[in-house]
Amino acid sequence: MQSMNWSHAEKKIARTAFDAALDKELAALLADFKRRALAATSAPQLWEIEDFLREQRRDIDRKYDFRYSQLIMVLGRLLREGWLHEQQLAGLGEDKLALIRRAASL
Amino acid sequence: MQSMNWSHAEKKIARTAFDAALDKELAALLADFKRRALAATSAPQLWEIEDFLREQRRDIDRKYDFRYSQLIMVLGRLLREGWLHEQQLAGLGEDKLALIRRAASL
Repeated sequence: MQSMNWSHAEKKIARTAFDAALDKELAALLADFKRRALAATSAPQLWEIEDFLREQRRDIDRKYDFRYSQLIMVLGRLLREGWLHEQQLAGLGEDKLALIRRAASL
Repeated sequence: MQSMNWSHAEKKIARTAFDAALDKELAALLADFKRRALAATSAPQLWEIEDFLREQRRDIDRKYDFRYSQLIMVLGRLLREGWLHEQQLAGLGEDKLALIRRAASL
């Protein structure tokens, strides 16, 4: 995958899909956080929320890696997790779509 | 202060006052956190809240040190910051109260 060639048009499609997935995941996290914050009634719950936010932040930082050498795996994972729909990848070469689908099914 | 002698009754008074201050500060933090959580509308604000919680947790962990060698300074600080009222220390020896008041004025 390291040697895979991404055309200018494909890079643009991948970037748009990637950014949309990130926005979607962050919006879901914000909503989840607000539910937890609203429900919190004690200090231990506050520290649980802090731990939760730290883990989520670290996971998201690691997951959203736009390097072209990682992109097939990353887009596959986003597809699997539902942050991305396959139609958002329309326009990518069939070779890449097949690999992304395979990565999504892992 | 290391060599200061705390009677059983004084230890009990100090412990009760210390615990009440901690409860008060944690309740204030919880309310502040809920205001921030309610106002958050974006991921950067989420990470700001995470940083805020981490700092508050660390500060509170450090501040609430019940070792008798630290207690004069700790109670003085809690008095200064308003987490404690002087009447909650009634029953401590005048020597200790004088030192706590002096620590509170630092």
